[in-house]
Amino acid sequence: MHEQKIQVLQGTVSKLLRRNATSNLKKALGKIHPADIAHLLRYFDVHEQKTLLELTPDLQRVADVLAELEPDSWPQIAELLDRDYLISIIHEMADDDSAVFIRSLPDDLGEQILIALHDDQSDDVEYLLGYEEETAGSIMSTDVFFLNQDISVRHAIEALQDSEDYEMVFYVYVTDEHNHLVGVLSLRQLLTVPPTTKLADIMSTNVMRVRSDMDQEEVAQMVAKYNLLAIPVVDDQGKLLGLITVDDVIDVMRDEATEDILRMAGTSEEELLLGYKSFQIARLRLPWLLTTLVGGVVTGTLMWYYRATLEQVIMLISFIPVITGMGGNVGGQTSTILVRGFATGRIDFSMIRQVFLKELRVGLIMGLVCGIVIAGVASIWHQNLYLGLVVGVAMVTAITVAACMGVVVTAFFKKIGVDPAIASSPFVQTVNDITGIMIYFSTATLFLPYLT
Amino acid sequence: MHEQKIQVLQGTVSKLLRRNATSNLKKALGKIHPADIAHLLRYFDVHEQKTLLELTPDLQRVADVLAELEPDSWPQIAELLDRDYLISIIHEMADDDSAVFIRSLPDDLGEQILIALHDDQSDDVEYLLGYEEETAGSIMSTDVFFLNQDISVRHAIEALQDSEDYEMVFYVYVTDEHNHLVGVLSLRQLLTVPPTTKLADIMSTNVMRVRSDMDQEEVAQMVAKYNLLAIPVVDDQGKLLGLITVDDVIDVMRDEATEDILRMAGTSEEELLLGYKSFQIARLRLPWLLTTLVGGVVTGTLMWYYRATLEQVIMLISFIPVITGMGGNVGGQTSTILVRGFATGRIDFSMIRQVFLKELRVGLIMGLVCGIVIAGVASIWHQNLYLGLVVGVAMVTAITVAACMGVVVTAFFKKIGVDPAIASSPFVQTVNDITGIMIYFSTATLFLPYLT
Repeated sequence: MHEQKIQVLQGTVSKLLRRNATSNLKKALGKIHPADIAHLLRYFDVHEQKTLLELTPDLQRVADVLAELEPDSWPQIAELLDRDYLISIIHEMADDDSAVFIRSLPDDLGEQILIALHDDQSDDVEYLLGYEEETAGSIMSTDVFFLNQDISVRHAIEALQDSEDYEMVFYVYVTDEHNHLVGVLSLRQLLTVPPTTKLADIMSTNVMRVRSDMDQEEVAQMVAKYNLLAIPVVDDQGKLLGLITVDDVIDVMRDEATEDILRMAGTSEEELLLGYKSFQIARLRLPWLLTTLVGGVVTGTLMWYYRATLEQVIMLISFIPVITGMGGNVGGQTSTILVRGFATGRIDFSMIRQVFLKELRVGLIMGLVCGIVIAGVASIWHQNLYLGLVVGVAMVTAITVAACMGVVVTAFFKKIGVDPAIASSPFVQTVNDITGIMIYFSTATLFLPYLT
Repeated sequence: MHEQKIQVLQGTVSKLLRRNATSNLKKALGKIHPADIAHLLRYFDVHEQKTLLELTPDLQRVADVLAELEPDSWPQIAELLDRDYLISIIHEMADDDSAVFIRSLPDDLGEQILIALHDDQSDDVEYLLGYEEETAGSIMSTDVFFLNQDISVRHAIEALQDSEDYEMVFYVYVTDEHNHLVGVLSLRQLLTVPPTTKLADIMSTNVMRVRSDMDQEEVAQMVAKYNLLAIPVVDDQGKLLGLITVDDVIDVMRDEATEDILRMAGTSEEELLLGYKSFQIARLRLPWLLTTLVGGVVTGTLMWYYRATLEQVIMLISFIPVITGMGGNVGGQTSTILVRGFATGRIDFSMIRQVFLKELRVGLIMGLVCGIVIAGVASIWHQNLYLGLVVGVAMVTAITVAACMGVVVTAFFKKIGVDPAIASSPFVQTVNDITGIMIYFSTATLFLPYLT
């Protein structure tokens, strides 16, 4: 339904662009939601994007569109737009958005823009650029609505009525004279007490807050856990620095999930910034691939080592792919359960023994089922019950070991501080290939007299 | 930092429990945030959980704790708690929470509770239970604060002051006399106009809304895209039914990401509800594993078919794992990029040709790099340049084909309406194993005279 709407809009805008119907385009772009304009722009090339941005009425609107665009398209558009026009757009952005935007640009362009911005805004932006990426400080907005604890409710309401600069006010944060965060009030509370009450008397003093150096993923987990709409950011002395709102948290959560998914497949979230740049994408994916390549060569060496057995009983060849493959799959399942468990906080190290035992049991059950199936297939296919036995035993062992290794390797990487989403998969896979082949061929060597 | 806090709390509560220090426990549980109590409970067995819940002061608080618990623990706790106590807790829950809670219970227990609830609440809950799972209707709350368009701002503020039942009011929704949603107001707007103004005169009539049958994932995408705090739910005639708030959307987004990650690994989000029940978990994972097992047997049959070549040139065996493995990895990367792209809306079918061409190029580049590396390894190891050539050519082709298949298979499943997160991986893997082996052995057969 929603996608259809975008497609209809795209058709209309394309037609108007082709006809050069400038005034109609302006009218249309003035009515479409900025997030939808940003979505639409994906379907046009960068020159058309430039034209459409220039035709969008109202600088605030253009700033909203730019902020909603995919970050990978920012540098190209920024280079194309007239410099003064670009600066006046950035001027309309919220300071957290403009910091993220400027951070994405080539260094020299970013600096030129910082210099050209009006002093007060560039101070705010430079200040935000000073925080490390992926910390609370780097995603907060400094536009936070706060009042001193000694003022009255009447004054608070008046201040609120003048607060048009603050887009989303749902809580009023209360500070002392040294700017320490001391309390919080909801808007509704202000409506339900006598106008002369001091804020200090009605505020709630138990305010959830985060330090500016907290990891953004942890911030997102807190906001999700406590169902917050916004969380104030303080420095190490408890002074109020800014505010992270739930819409930013949603972006963080989506990005962190994407990050985990892409890392598990051996690539990275940076890939999304590269668009269609094949060489750079290949460079990003290659280190992980080459690691698994080494693992594959190690497994191959092992098979070379068992070549005598294989030459004697060539039918063993038929079950190599299924044994290594199944080990890899089961190890991957277990590892995935752990990676996601760590990421969402469902699993922590205090439960690791229980999780290990569970995966051991699950692996054993699945191994038995798959082992019996494959033993049947092997016995019937090659008319040799001993082959069935060898393949079956190898399958049960390989799957059980794989399930255990999935837990051990993933937990190990987590423990030593390496992101298990990146590291687990190649290692789990290689370890399982090796144990699978070893178990298979040593069982086969044991039963060699019955197989030939 | 946050984890440490939980651990300290856990230590304290354990100690108090062992000592049977009931009144201290009560005091402590009265101060800990309900979400933290829910988190803590994970570390205790179900009987201790029952004791702790019963000691938690204030039914509203207990209801909050229960709502924040992992859904997999609900049925067990519900069975253990005194029936009347349980019902009085559910009575304190928001109706959307209690609907989800009751949905998780065994049918007969759920029905008994519905009967025992006071009439008005059980009507609301039964009404919510009527919506299909994973639709907007099933996650909305019916506690939505709305006013008629004809009332004045003064009356609206008075109504707001009496609105303690509505936990999170940030927007006031405005309806006509037939309950159609016609407008929306922010709280601040109410403060900035004369008290006699009619709501109809100041409300914004362009209200984002969703239909009750919209998929919850689509709702989450809308809320994320338009940075909303809440979105009203309407029926097909535009009548206001309920409200979905951003905290529910965060849960949906997290669940959908987990769902995709687990499905890609061949298990399902249901696994998280099964705790440590090994048999049921194994049953959940087995269908996908058995599918890949069939794929492995097919690959094995193919290798059996080429056994004559293999017997003549046994050194070919050393590179089978690396060629099938790398194909599987590259196919997995491409497929993951697509699965996540479809899920977040970054990729749609209009771009599929571009994406295919990009992956083809990326695959070719990565194939060339890996091919050259492995050709070098093969030539040096077995002192045979032709073997290097065969292995290298097979690697380039296998990786390039794998990258293309990753796009084709994933897009195909998406197109025919099968979730590509579940289906892609086994198919991509099998197709790649087969093409990898075929390319490898046919090249080898071609160069057979030079290899022996």
